[in-house]
Amino acid sequence: MPETAPGKHPALFAETPLDRDGVERAARELTDRVWRTPVVRCAPLDAIAGARLWLKAENLQHGGSFKVRGALLAVDELARAGSRGVIAQSTGNHAIAVALAAREHRLPATLVLPSDAPPAKVRRIRDAGAEVVTAGTLLAERVAVVEQLRERHGYDAVDPYQNPRVVLGQASATAELLGQVAAEGVRLDAVIVPVGGGSAVAGACLAAEGTGTAVVGAEPAAVPALTAALAAGLPVTVPARYTVADGLRPDRIGALPFELAERAVTAVVTVPEPAIGEALMAAFLHARLVVEPAAATALAAALAHAAEYGGDVGVLLSGGNVEPGLIASLLAGRSGLD
Amino acid sequence: MPETAPGKHPALFAETPLDRDGVERAARELTDRVWRTPVVRCAPLDAIAGARLWLKAENLQHGGSFKVRGALLAVDELARAGSRGVIAQSTGNHAIAVALAAREHRLPATLVLPSDAPPAKVRRIRDAGAEVVTAGTLLAERVAVVEQLRERHGYDAVDPYQNPRVVLGQASATAELLGQVAAEGVRLDAVIVPVGGGSAVAGACLAAEGTGTAVVGAEPAAVPALTAALAAGLPVTVPARYTVADGLRPDRIGALPFELAERAVTAVVTVPEPAIGEALMAAFLHARLVVEPAAATALAAALAHAAEYGGDVGVLLSGGNVEPGLIASLLAGRSGLD
Repeated sequence: MPETAPGKHPALFAETPLDRDGVERAARELTDRVWRTPVVRCAPLDAIAGARLWLKAENLQHGGSFKVRGALLAVDELARAGSRGVIAQSTGNHAIAVALAAREHRLPATLVLPSDAPPAKVRRIRDAGAEVVTAGTLLAERVAVVEQLRERHGYDAVDPYQNPRVVLGQASATAELLGQVAAEGVRLDAVIVPVGGGSAVAGACLAAEGTGTAVVGAEPAAVPALTAALAAGLPVTVPARYTVADGLRPDRIGALPFELAERAVTAVVTVPEPAIGEALMAAFLHARLVVEPAAATALAAALAHAAEYGGDVGVLLSGGNVEPGLIASLLAGRSGLD
Repeated sequence: MPETAPGKHPALFAETPLDRDGVERAARELTDRVWRTPVVRCAPLDAIAGARLWLKAENLQHGGSFKVRGALLAVDELARAGSRGVIAQSTGNHAIAVALAAREHRLPATLVLPSDAPPAKVRRIRDAGAEVVTAGTLLAERVAVVEQLRERHGYDAVDPYQNPRVVLGQASATAELLGQVAAEGVRLDAVIVPVGGGSAVAGACLAAEGTGTAVVGAEPAAVPALTAALAAGLPVTVPARYTVADGLRPDRIGALPFELAERAVTAVVTVPEPAIGEALMAAFLHARLVVEPAAATALAAALAHAAEYGGDVGVLLSGGNVEPGLIASLLAGRSGLD
């Protein structure tokens, strides 16, 4: 699998400092281009968690997830360099985000998704005028197709985990959360973020650097890619078991996110499958927010473990691109009414 | 129907100025007691409306609706005066709000709801420790039961439309919206609010006084109580036809709200039944917000008519206490996936 770590390509990363300064610069570049999404409080969820939860509602972001942040920064740079088009692999949200960013620069875009990607996500990519190609269900299968098509079309790849501008863009979501909570006079004890390929957790580590706020990753117990990598001391591929959290299906953490997370993450929580659907319903019924299973994974970790990290805990509700049918079936599975 | 208008009981209203000063005072009293709910922007909804919509997400408020604002102010006053308990009639949200306010003051509370009130709302009232009594489906039936029980228990009634502190509390939601949008450098051309008994529209009129922002009411075409009152020049009872917007079923506008709305409201939009469900789904699928049909009624009016009022239009998403089964059936009724 082609991967680039900071140590291997110093030139690429030299002008993009992967630190708090870089995050602040990224946030400034994104001003007025992304929504400053609200931080939502919800008393019933606080009661379940035994802590005050500060929910960063990136499900309300353009394209329905925080991924538009990193994609905009990455595609801006490629457009400036005269790119003829962009290509990316993704479980869905990064693809939507790259499609939107490419449309802004009037660049053609091809997105490579797993064959079992949610139709809602595929629809959003096509609505943005981009082409969708599907390739198996594994990360390595998508990466291989990106390489083929990149060469054939002469397009530039926008890696969802390895591109430092992507990581810095995703970091701006956590930085914004920390700033919004600080404006209320509160310092977060911890921030809990979902872990798929790793850009969110890597970004959170950069944003929280030196703030005293702990970074906690949340990943499905079915696909514990970061947990396994931390145990092995390097990214490893884990068995590709099913999880409802389609956005967290990457079976291997990216090398760059791993390097950043390894030295800065406080803990990684693995979330049992049923807890993901329960948290999605809790967000729906108590916080009146429509979130996708990846975001619900972070919320589930918070509901079960936030109190272990302190009294004030941020949660990155990473996206809201959920299949309506999933909500319908979760509603049907409930025994009573709230 | 027992009603008190400002002119009839000047002493009651003398210390509660029904003007912008009164609204600002109400907002100060509510600081740190209610959430400062976010104003949500959503590009796909803007595209449908042909205007920039600024969605005041009071569906994220304590108790799931903006009604907690007025109930807190009213019950505070009663508690200070040594009340032994409170009673109120409501289609649901005012009852939840009074139950929460009464719990805060450790006062017993009895709430009178229509027999077809959504179970989700009844559950929330009981969760707050209050007693629920049901009485027919008409406003007059509930008002009669409130009078009986008020005398029997020696409780104080908290009228959802006639109490000036209730109206001022509800006004604080619109005032907050205007302030939040002004902080972005924008003056709203109009604000669209749902009309049931009239406290929201009356409050909006007070909050918008002198700001240059027009106030537009939105009511179900099935129960056009404000439209009929404006035509008649006084509150009239309209036929009690069914609407999915359970919160907007009062078949008569309150005398106090009518007096305030008559002199200040710019227009009233009547919303066809199917548009209410469609707007509820639009909020769900595009804005990722769970709203109840009353809030969807205001959104429906905005999606169809906002551009007639200007380029920047606020919408009071009044509440989120929707029956999960309604969402499930709306999802089932959709032909495709988004």
